[in-house]
Amino acid sequence: MNKKLIFFVAGLGRFGESVATTLENMGYEVMAMDLDEDVVQNLSSTLGYVVCADASEEKNLQAIGAGNADVAVVALGDMSASLLSTLILKEMGVKKIVVKALSKMHGKMLTKIGADKIIYSEHEMGIRVAHNLVNPGLVDYIEMDNDLSVFSIRVPSGWVGKDLKHLNVRNKYNITVVAIRRGEKTMVNPNPELKLQVDDMMIILGDNESVKKATETIGNS
Amino acid sequence: MNKKLIFFVAGLGRFGESVATTLENMGYEVMAMDLDEDVVQNLSSTLGYVVCADASEEKNLQAIGAGNADVAVVALGDMSASLLSTLILKEMGVKKIVVKALSKMHGKMLTKIGADKIIYSEHEMGIRVAHNLVNPGLVDYIEMDNDLSVFSIRVPSGWVGKDLKHLNVRNKYNITVVAIRRGEKTMVNPNPELKLQVDDMMIILGDNESVKKATETIGNS
Amino acid sequence: MNKKLIFFVAGLGRFGESVATTLENMGYEVMAMDLDEDVVQNLSSTLGYVVCADASEEKNLQAIGAGNADVAVVALGDMSASLLSTLILKEMGVKKIVVKALSKMHGKMLTKIGADKIIYSEHEMGIRVAHNLVNPGLVDYIEMDNDLSVFSIRVPSGWVGKDLKHLNVRNKYNITVVAIRRGEKTMVNPNPELKLQVDDMMIILGDNESVKKATETIGNS
Amino acid sequence: MNKKLIFFVAGLGRFGESVATTLENMGYEVMAMDLDEDVVQNLSSTLGYVVCADASEEKNLQAIGAGNADVAVVALGDMSASLLSTLILKEMGVKKIVVKALSKMHGKMLTKIGADKIIYSEHEMGIRVAHNLVNPGLVDYIEMDNDLSVFSIRVPSGWVGKDLKHLNVRNKYNITVVAIRRGEKTMVNPNPELKLQVDDMMIILGDNESVKKATETIGNS
Amino acid sequence: MNKKLIFFVAGLGRFGESVATTLENMGYEVMAMDLDEDVVQNLSSTLGYVVCADASEEKNLQAIGAGNADVAVVALGDMSASLLSTLILKEMGVKKIVVKALSKMHGKMLTKIGADKIIYSEHEMGIRVAHNLVNPGLVDYIEMDNDLSVFSIRVPSGWVGKDLKHLNVRNKYNITVVAIRRGEKTMVNPNPELKLQVDDMMIILGDNESVKKATETIGNS
Amino acid sequence: MNKKLIFFVAGLGRFGESVATTLENMGYEVMAMDLDEDVVQNLSSTLGYVVCADASEEKNLQAIGAGNADVAVVALGDMSASLLSTLILKEMGVKKIVVKALSKMHGKMLTKIGADKIIYSEHEMGIRVAHNLVNPGLVDYIEMDNDLSVFSIRVPSGWVGKDLKHLNVRNKYNITVVAIRRGEKTMVNPNPELKLQVDDMMIILGDNESVKKATETIGNS
Amino acid sequence: MNKKLIFFVAGLGRFGESVATTLENMGYEVMAMDLDEDVVQNLSSTLGYVVCADASEEKNLQAIGAGNADVAVVALGDMSASLLSTLILKEMGVKKIVVKALSKMHGKMLTKIGADKIIYSEHEMGIRVAHNLVNPGLVDYIEMDNDLSVFSIRVPSGWVGKDLKHLNVRNKYNITVVAIRRGEKTMVNPNPELKLQVDDMMIILGDNESVKKATETIGNS
Amino acid sequence: MNKKLIFFVAGLGRFGESVATTLENMGYEVMAMDLDEDVVQNLSSTLGYVVCADASEEKNLQAIGAGNADVAVVALGDMSASLLSTLILKEMGVKKIVVKALSKMHGKMLTKIGADKIIYSEHEMGIRVAHNLVNPGLVDYIEMDNDLSVFSIRVPSGWVGKDLKHLNVRNKYNITVVAIRRGEKTMVNPNPELKLQVDDMMIILGDNESVKKATETIGNS
Repeated sequence: MNKKLIFFVAGLGRFGESVATTLENMGYEVMAMDLDEDVVQNLSSTLGYVVCADASEEKNLQAIGAGNADVAVVALGDMSASLLSTLILKEMGVKKIVVKALSKMHGKMLTKIGADKIIYSEHEMGIRVAHNLVNPGLVDYIEMDNDLSVFSIRVPSGWVGKDLKHLNVRNKYNITVVAIRRGEKTMVNPNPELKLQVDDMMIILGDNESVKKATETIGNS
Repeated sequence: MNKKLIFFVAGLGRFGESVATTLENMGYEVMAMDLDEDVVQNLSSTLGYVVCADASEEKNLQAIGAGNADVAVVALGDMSASLLSTLILKEMGVKKIVVKALSKMHGKMLTKIGADKIIYSEHEMGIRVAHNLVNPGLVDYIEMDNDLSVFSIRVPSGWVGKDLKHLNVRNKYNITVVAIRRGEKTMVNPNPELKLQVDDMMIILGDNESVKKATETIGNS
Repeated sequence: MNKKLIFFVAGLGRFGESVATTLENMGYEVMAMDLDEDVVQNLSSTLGYVVCADASEEKNLQAIGAGNADVAVVALGDMSASLLSTLILKEMGVKKIVVKALSKMHGKMLTKIGADKIIYSEHEMGIRVAHNLVNPGLVDYIEMDNDLSVFSIRVPSGWVGKDLKHLNVRNKYNITVVAIRRGEKTMVNPNPELKLQVDDMMIILGDNESVKKATETIGNS
Repeated sequence: MNKKLIFFVAGLGRFGESVATTLENMGYEVMAMDLDEDVVQNLSSTLGYVVCADASEEKNLQAIGAGNADVAVVALGDMSASLLSTLILKEMGVKKIVVKALSKMHGKMLTKIGADKIIYSEHEMGIRVAHNLVNPGLVDYIEMDNDLSVFSIRVPSGWVGKDLKHLNVRNKYNITVVAIRRGEKTMVNPNPELKLQVDDMMIILGDNESVKKATETIGNS
Repeated sequence: MNKKLIFFVAGLGRFGESVATTLENMGYEVMAMDLDEDVVQNLSSTLGYVVCADASEEKNLQAIGAGNADVAVVALGDMSASLLSTLILKEMGVKKIVVKALSKMHGKMLTKIGADKIIYSEHEMGIRVAHNLVNPGLVDYIEMDNDLSVFSIRVPSGWVGKDLKHLNVRNKYNITVVAIRRGEKTMVNPNPELKLQVDDMMIILGDNESVKKATETIGNS
Repeated sequence: MNKKLIFFVAGLGRFGESVATTLENMGYEVMAMDLDEDVVQNLSSTLGYVVCADASEEKNLQAIGAGNADVAVVALGDMSASLLSTLILKEMGVKKIVVKALSKMHGKMLTKIGADKIIYSEHEMGIRVAHNLVNPGLVDYIEMDNDLSVFSIRVPSGWVGKDLKHLNVRNKYNITVVAIRRGEKTMVNPNPELKLQVDDMMIILGDNESVKKATETIGNS
Repeated sequence: MNKKLIFFVAGLGRFGESVATTLENMGYEVMAMDLDEDVVQNLSSTLGYVVCADASEEKNLQAIGAGNADVAVVALGDMSASLLSTLILKEMGVKKIVVKALSKMHGKMLTKIGADKIIYSEHEMGIRVAHNLVNPGLVDYIEMDNDLSVFSIRVPSGWVGKDLKHLNVRNKYNITVVAIRRGEKTMVNPNPELKLQVDDMMIILGDNESVKKATETIGNS
Repeated sequence: MNKKLIFFVAGLGRFGESVATTLENMGYEVMAMDLDEDVVQNLSSTLGYVVCADASEEKNLQAIGAGNADVAVVALGDMSASLLSTLILKEMGVKKIVVKALSKMHGKMLTKIGADKIIYSEHEMGIRVAHNLVNPGLVDYIEMDNDLSVFSIRVPSGWVGKDLKHLNVRNKYNITVVAIRRGEKTMVNPNPELKLQVDDMMIILGDNESVKKATETIGNS
């Protein structure tokens, strides 16, 4: 049987708090630390183990036992503190350290110091929102490795009453509709002659370039 | 033919900058405003139209012509300024106003004042990262309306060499593997007897509860 | 029999203090809150129930039991705090929320968030003072709905020894002298032939435009 | 013919701005001064003559010609500045100086230094609001010299359909209803047998004590 | 027999401390108050009765019993605090209030508020030093009412070996040498034929203008 | 004939300004320097040569030519700046450097660094005021070397109508009345049988101890 | 023939200034940068090429051409700026980067980021001074690799008049006196029978432990 | 037998901490003081006797018994505090006072006030680093009195395989190689015909000018 993972979260701003409470809610053991007393007090009823201390000082990280964590998430808002905390956690032997970067240079330094994964939350969310804005039907999208995107999109008004075969989606846009969600029902590998209805949601696959072009074209059709 | 959308972005922190440059790179017309002179100067070569001004003052929003925007993105870091800017843009007749919220209460007020969409970027990214941490194979996921999730995940080591039929994925987890990505190739509605290989990427559909349970179980198998 | 109203006052600056102590002196139950420890201590002997806490935080409003108030008066000097406090009190079910606005935009937002009445104290007092300045005899005035004003004014020196009939006030200025106060005595609907004396005080009714014109004319006569 | 009064307003916060713009709108000549450049710029289109300078320095007051004003309104937020400005204007020979006081002690000092009238705007507005809160029908009231108040109030629900004679207002409350406003019409010295209707507005006279007692009783009837 | 005077000193900067300790050393009863905790602690062994409190707040002045003082010395560095403290002490009935002024305007306001004597210490000391600089022999001087000065000065080198009669001091400079101090001996109304010696000290009387002119002339002879 | 002295004044606070303007008014050449632009501008019409610069930096002192001064007065409010300025002026060869000390330790350091005279203005003025307070008749006093004081004092009420012979001043108090000032007239070495009158002013000589004792005794008689 | 080295110095505090001016004086080409305008201006006459800019921003480093430097010295006082500057210089291809560390952790991060040499100036100088204090004769010392120290020390008073042979220095302390400096003369490998004189300076070699023990013993003899 | 020296260290920045811990580690008694509570707490386990107090106040220096120290090291970062502390320690009778100077002027003042030795740590370390940079082989150097330098340097690549006799070092550069360190072995007064090897370390003596010239020439050979 599997041992439950133990997490340490340094910095409980909106991002860190979200990580910590999501993990706690999923049943994992979470140790959390923040410098702001109010923040700590407000989260003390939500998180099982949260202390008020400077996560860039070794003695504090040792006092909480951060070295026992399988994964550490460093989400500090000060660049120096973030770098120091990452380095100390690395030296304490934490196997996986995920750090929220404040800039590209910060990210580069974190990698050199030993961070395992760099999160550019504001930057990535900005891109997501931008894509969504230019195609209001787009609900969300996933940019995978190897130049492949999955995205979910509402059927554009111009397509209602037509079928995928006549729309010639695969050839015209070089994308594949892998499923259609209609109300509570999901049709995987949908029949190409199925007539699309208002409010149908399509799950589409394709290479990034094609998906982007399709999204814009479909969004405006 | 369609008229290109015009965007106005208020606040060019990491999120706002990301939204503005993504839109600009996609070829849209973007007007942008920030109070910090350095920020504006640094982005002046990237963005076509960016000015240094307080986006919570009506005269500045009128001077830049924010009323002509089809969509406004308010990404200011000060709660009062964010609320004021949203209200003024609403009164200037901007049809769609997307605002980055700093807290739940801020989000509620924005909705009452007339914001069309509230973004909780830090919060949402935190949830995403938390999910990823407990299942290292998970690349990304989409939480759709109507209680449906799509997610992409690497084939767990315990599944390699087995096929979906014997794994009995649909019945055991109540989810559907809609596609398998193998190297450059994508197999939609994959053959249930196909033997899974190391590094295969699966695109899975299911209701949120089932997907979450599956993710955790698969992640630890 | 009537139940006495319960009040909650958030913010004890000059305005808030004045509201709270006036209500307390009239015998009502008043709960009051301010962030400044000195302010709270100074008022602790005057007000029965006053605590030092941030009125823009839900937990503090719940601790004092602000939800039990029939009327809440929000008189905070910070725009964000004022908006947050108003929203939380609304959600706690306070039936009537009166808020001091710091600007027109603030007032608009308060209305959208659910404030029942907006007070522009500085602005209104400024108008009052301005009117008084251009007519030194004017003691005070009331601007009613439906374009009607009541005002009290000392008899101008040019009118002393004359009567209202000869002065032809009603026709000349389109206003009505509803009462004359002479020493301790008040003459309602005064005899048009009554000779006006120095120090007589007149209570006048009329539409706003006429009253304003009359005030200025009389003031300089 | 009368010479138009000339005003000087020092300090353009919400109160000062309100005084200055009201006077300007009434056609008077207004000179105004504030230390805040933004404030001055924002009002430069509304006010004919407004400069950015410290109103507590003699040279600035002389430069603008404040000595030519018939009336000066000092509405500065700093106690020392307010006192200095008042003293200098007095020495420059301004005949009437009206000053907004920040506290009772401030008011006392202003009087000793030579201010002609002290305004306690926040304090007075607070009392007004408090009275209004305990009697929601009360629109406004005037507290005159010689212990006499005039106030306007909506007819309380318990009085609708009754007449003043049977309500016995004069004897019961020791007050006089000098006029009743019904829609566009105003009835001075109303017929005691007139049946009161919903939405009638009454103009009432009486000594302060009686009016206050009546207001509370009527408000709850 | 005489009752010893009681003093209250508000503000223990260099000036206030000097006043308070000098009075204490002369055997008088001194109450002292300062806002700075360190200052109070440092003086607690020197002064019998010193407390840490804001001397511009009535409750503090009453707590220390400042109203019992025969003389109050207000030496506060903040203009508002100085004015407030003076006014409150006046209202508490202190008979003599001496205040250190920070500027001429401050001094004027203090006088109007009721201060009995205004001290311009920095200003006066500056004048003293300036006079001393232009005549290095000058030890000190007294500027009396009625246009009369007394000053003590060392015999200038050009006068040594001469007598006052030949120097014709009284006619030439219109001043009187009232005494000569030679070593331990003092010669009042010195013999006009007394030969002046090196290191003799002269006490001189004269009208201000003459003394000033003489000082400069003698200083350079 | 004598060459006029040249002065340099560093720091134009109340003390420095007083020194500089007094010297300028006496016709001397004064160079002055202060860090505060407003101060410099305000004094630019009074002082012939005043610049805005940091007087603790050698290049500034050289630029103004402070090395040409016969006497430098350092009246800076910051201890480090005062020490630096003094040292640099010393090294530039200024023959006499007079410095205002902020504390005893400051004074000691200044002496070691080479200051020729240390002024404790606040301290000295405090002593003067204290002496004056305990004897309201005392106008001023001079504390000379060799334990001798001169002081001017109004005739105490108990002495009016009496003469110095009967009062036996010299024996009783060991002091000498060297002159009496009556209105516009001054009587040096006054007749011991002269009857003292109200408002007579006495110039007295004596050793410090005797004068102090006499002042207190006379002050209370 | 050799090409002269080109240096870039980031940060002109006392350490950076010392490095830059020493190099400049030795005839090398030095580019220097500091954020403080005063610092830059003061050094502009000493250094040939110095600009005022933030050395943690890539564009500034490129503008000055820092990439052309053979050696870069980063002496910034802010940890983040120091790290950023080092990383950017590394990416610009500077071959040797020497950085002043503010702490041990800072030093570790610098090494990981690519700094070639870390200077702990304050720390090292502290050790040097400590050694010097316990042995006042010690002039300076060198701690070499391989556990060897060279140090120069004045002949202790107890050794004067004796020779090295009788003192048995080599056996007693396990150190070697490699040279003796007497006035202007230097005797390498001194004759063991040479009588030591007051003011002789010895150059000694030995392993660290022995040297330290000898230093203390000799220092107290 | 010798009495152990007692040290007092004022200011525990990087320099002061290094001095204090080095002395403590060498077994000396060290009293230390710093104003920063965190600094004091962090060093409380390393240093036997460390307190948190302002070292520029006499009472604190007396409380710790700084007057009993044989040597005081003043390493404060504020110029005034440094001067005050030095002066007070001098007056308390400390025989040797070593002070870290912040600038040349600071150093001069310290000397005049009585400091026995001035340390310019940043400045000196900067010179050391500069010398090292231009000759990468140079390990360290000692600049002695009387214009003599000792330095240790790695054998330059151009000298490997050659002997000192043929290289003619003494004549060519006017320096003496007093010793050669090879691995664990040290050869004092090395045989002039000894063939130099890679990694040999030379200890060289010479007048400053010659050593500097040699260092540069050798470094580039």
